[in-house]
Amino acid sequence: MCELLGMECNVPTDIIFSFSGLRQRGGKTGPHADGWGLAFYEGYATRVFLDPEPACHSPLARFLAENPIKTLLAVGHVRKRTRGPTSLANTHPFVRELWGRHWVFAHNGTLPHVRKRKLGRFKPIGTTDSEHAFCVLLESLRSSFSDFPRRPRELWEAVADIGARIAKDGGTFNFLLGDGRHLYARCGTRLCHIIRKAPFGEATLADDDVRVDFSTVTTPRDRVAVVATAPLTTNEVWTQGRPGELWIFDHGRLLATLPSGSADRRAA
Amino acid sequence: MCELLGMECNVPTDIIFSFSGLRQRGGKTGPHADGWGLAFYEGYATRVFLDPEPACHSPLARFLAENPIKTLLAVGHVRKRTRGPTSLANTHPFVRELWGRHWVFAHNGTLPHVRKRKLGRFKPIGTTDSEHAFCVLLESLRSSFSDFPRRPRELWEAVADIGARIAKDGGTFNFLLGDGRHLYARCGTRLCHIIRKAPFGEATLADDDVRVDFSTVTTPRDRVAVVATAPLTTNEVWTQGRPGELWIFDHGRLLATLPSGSADRRAA
Repeated sequence: MCELLGMECNVPTDIIFSFSGLRQRGGKTGPHADGWGLAFYEGYATRVFLDPEPACHSPLARFLAENPIKTLLAVGHVRKRTRGPTSLANTHPFVRELWGRHWVFAHNGTLPHVRKRKLGRFKPIGTTDSEHAFCVLLESLRSSFSDFPRRPRELWEAVADIGARIAKDGGTFNFLLGDGRHLYARCGTRLCHIIRKAPFGEATLADDDVRVDFSTVTTPRDRVAVVATAPLTTNEVWTQGRPGELWIFDHGRLLATLPSGSADRRAA
Repeated sequence: MCELLGMECNVPTDIIFSFSGLRQRGGKTGPHADGWGLAFYEGYATRVFLDPEPACHSPLARFLAENPIKTLLAVGHVRKRTRGPTSLANTHPFVRELWGRHWVFAHNGTLPHVRKRKLGRFKPIGTTDSEHAFCVLLESLRSSFSDFPRRPRELWEAVADIGARIAKDGGTFNFLLGDGRHLYARCGTRLCHIIRKAPFGEATLADDDVRVDFSTVTTPRDRVAVVATAPLTTNEVWTQGRPGELWIFDHGRLLATLPSGSADRRAA
């Protein structure tokens, strides 16, 4: 299993506070020591920092903590491998280009039957069930629309639908997906989110001895949505996802909650 | 114009000595201050470090110099923008997945007519002529082969052919292309290479006060091919490319030199 971290905001924000907590779960407070990755969007392009080493000891993770990158949309992951060895090719998040924008994907769970699903134009480079599922998901979108849909809701529904179909094969399919504008977050079994907005208060990390007073680093109009596998702070109220729902975040708001199948069962 | 840097070897090697020279041209000894990028393969997957800031001042470039990553295949670029503003989306090298492997591309020159060429499944995210050319090149390969060809020479010839056709439209098309195994390097106007092998000697960077004695960091079986826009060292003999030829490197050897059109003319 793995831990997911997503952030989507209305002003460029650095994700380092949240990432500091997640990082500790990468081999220190959690067993997720098989690599980590963090993708930062700038417009429709993303840059992804990937490291097959444990996040808690990674010089690259320390570099990012010391040189924070502000972004409107970020997707992160620390990995405890279940399927596929530890390698760069198996390190989330995965990226593909579709319709002239980068799509970024990270998965928590296992999908033991997903390889039965045929691939189209997107092929996995590594050996994870997760990357296979991402390729199936993107192919499904590509074959449903000739370009990025003008009515975004059609796209959201398509993501919810293919998410439900893949989950129905068996296994657990908690995922984060970014398209350069929206953050899609599917709760198969376990996922939570928080929207930070005015009045901002103080937050204390659950996994590290760090606290931050957001009121000193924000303006009253700022909105920051953070999604994680488990709450990252101890003194804030996180909203637990209901299994089988897909959240869509835009400009730091939870724009929509769509049904995306029933609760995932654990792998048979 | 921009500067290219490629490395292809038979043992994992760090590119930092060469990159140190290139970095200085990113705003210090050269005018290429509009971003830089460096892609490192591990098998068929690559991780790309991109920075729209000048390489000579970039904390990320310094991090990579201090935390070298060994690889068999690397592609780097520092940018002096000609077409398209400075942004992450316009920062080389560009990456796409085809046939289950990452393809990495960096370009030196301008291609004023390339946008007349139709795109297929690969779409640019940024606004450079370079990324458009990369998308056209990959689409040409994709439509010529259903999978990575069993006879590699067919692929090399296809790369040489599409390189020649794009160059014939006008402009200059010096490029580096990696497929996870080979390094393809087309000389349109200006490109050079060196093969470092036993007996290894000492090399002195042209752009920085750095020298290295390769005999202390290599074994007699090591072979390292380095390709650059202009020689990076002052006391080694670099082979100048002939305009209109494509080099294929594999395991640190120049495996083949193919005709790829006539010498590029500067943009009309």
